[in-house]
Amino acid sequence: MGGDFAPEEIVKGVAAASLATAIECVLVGDEPRIQAVLDTLSYDPAHIRIHHAADAVGMQEAPREALRAKRDASIRVGASLVADGQADALVSAGNTGACLLACAREFRILKGVRKPGLASVYPRHTDLPGQDPLALLLDVGATVRCDAADLVQLAVMGSVWAHRVSRIARPRVGLLNMGAEPFRGGDVLAEAHERLTTLPAIDFVGNVEGSDVAKGRADVIVCEGLLGSVVLKFIEGITDVVNDVASHAVKQRFVWRLGMRLLSRGLREVAHFTEHAAYGGAPLLGFEQLLVKTHEHSRALAIANAVKLAAKTVREGVIAEIGAGLEGVRA
Amino acid sequence: MGGDFAPEEIVKGVAAASLATAIECVLVGDEPRIQAVLDTLSYDPAHIRIHHAADAVGMQEAPREALRAKRDASIRVGASLVADGQADALVSAGNTGACLLACAREFRILKGVRKPGLASVYPRHTDLPGQDPLALLLDVGATVRCDAADLVQLAVMGSVWAHRVSRIARPRVGLLNMGAEPFRGGDVLAEAHERLTTLPAIDFVGNVEGSDVAKGRADVIVCEGLLGSVVLKFIEGITDVVNDVASHAVKQRFVWRLGMRLLSRGLREVAHFTEHAAYGGAPLLGFEQLLVKTHEHSRALAIANAVKLAAKTVREGVIAEIGAGLEGVRA
Repeated sequence: MGGDFAPEEIVKGVAAASLATAIECVLVGDEPRIQAVLDTLSYDPAHIRIHHAADAVGMQEAPREALRAKRDASIRVGASLVADGQADALVSAGNTGACLLACAREFRILKGVRKPGLASVYPRHTDLPGQDPLALLLDVGATVRCDAADLVQLAVMGSVWAHRVSRIARPRVGLLNMGAEPFRGGDVLAEAHERLTTLPAIDFVGNVEGSDVAKGRADVIVCEGLLGSVVLKFIEGITDVVNDVASHAVKQRFVWRLGMRLLSRGLREVAHFTEHAAYGGAPLLGFEQLLVKTHEHSRALAIANAVKLAAKTVREGVIAEIGAGLEGVRA
Repeated sequence: MGGDFAPEEIVKGVAAASLATAIECVLVGDEPRIQAVLDTLSYDPAHIRIHHAADAVGMQEAPREALRAKRDASIRVGASLVADGQADALVSAGNTGACLLACAREFRILKGVRKPGLASVYPRHTDLPGQDPLALLLDVGATVRCDAADLVQLAVMGSVWAHRVSRIARPRVGLLNMGAEPFRGGDVLAEAHERLTTLPAIDFVGNVEGSDVAKGRADVIVCEGLLGSVVLKFIEGITDVVNDVASHAVKQRFVWRLGMRLLSRGLREVAHFTEHAAYGGAPLLGFEQLLVKTHEHSRALAIANAVKLAAKTVREGVIAEIGAGLEGVRA
């Protein structure tokens, strides 16, 4: 029931996944509305069932108050289904704050985790063939401030995710900071830098600055939630402008192509940002259970991809591997 | 002697200013090199003199070590000339860390100021005729972490600057945060939000998010240095990509214009970013003396504009007004 195009685009995405994969989906929300959308689509009924939840948290609602008032909110019901083992992972395009709170209440925290972190994927410049055009940024809002140990845990969790899910042999991990020198950014970042340098499990490339984010110097960029969420929103603001360009391009396809050829490299890199739209989503890491959070603007294609991403993560035991990675750091 | 094109472009900018204005400039640095550049230019010798400094801090040098080793570094000599009243303001395109350190050593702090703040201007969307296309972001690296009182001082200093220098009748001040709600971003930001709300001298528009930065919702955006400097570098990274587009545009002017007309609004907004190049610079605020810091890529036009900006600020007594503004907050 969450996201700008719910339930229509969510149900469409799940219907498409039901025909293309063997994944079993539980649609949690207003049963009559969901069924009405399903009735207009082709789907495999063996792969979809509806679990009724009477309420839903709106995109603009204050998360804490909304969850307190709406005991039967779809996000909370969904999280509890996963916590009870009735589903293997949760996918949501809804109110991010409500997702985080519902998971914090219903999910069990991974052993030793201090603060779960919400990741986001963002498009970046690639200069190697086959390089993933998307990099991972975490945390983007599950935390506010982090200490050095929190940042190290985020680095480990993000690195395992990039290795297993994005198939990056040895993910390069960077620490978002105000300068390249190891001592920059105050005591917390300096200590995090020092600890990350000594961890054999991580390919730490050092501090990365704001200008490195788009350049793709790192596959995983780690920072506290305040910083990550400001940067993420900034990227989204730029993406809106680029999407505006892209919508003109659709109307003026020939001239756009001509222009693209002439304007060449620079513009193509900007346009890169729009590839975002097809990507599934990014994980909330640090719990025994999985949430894949998709963008609130997600349409059917992104939802179907998020469902596949969640299923792949569960199938391949990525969460257990994250737990083992964290264990390795403590040892 | 600082910046990517020193001393040539610095001297060219000052030579242009010497012909166009009555501003008297002291060029601080390697006298023979500076004189050699001057000899190739037209300039008004009544408006320019050279003050020799044997050393200079390189752009890649560690500021603290460089200033320790180079007692006669141009930035330090320049700052002490201003502190001694032999000049009214300092302009530099050099190593930012060295500028900050030299000013901290030589300048006197304004009464009651806890932490001086370095501002930066950045291009933003404008939707009102006559609206300044540049907004002020501070602090971008003089501080690392700030408490609520520091942020309030930054807001007051930035607001007075925008009012007096950018001629904005009542500058809108925003607090960079991870969400719009007053309680977001932890205790420090929540307290800063509360205090800013109650200050009659400031038109506080509340928290602004990363996506609001480019949209121009605020004329002055306040944040701690860690956050501001990451965002600033991020903006510069995007600007590089756009400049790349612009350089193609110069080569293909006709098609570019055609493309611009067709691609219209979205692309124009992106291109906005490049207007940066002609702007003079931004102040280090919180001292009795003034530093105008220009971008390290600055060429002659930006340097000439920075000189004019510094002169205007001194002529109009902006620093004294900032002092009065801070006094008003304490009262």
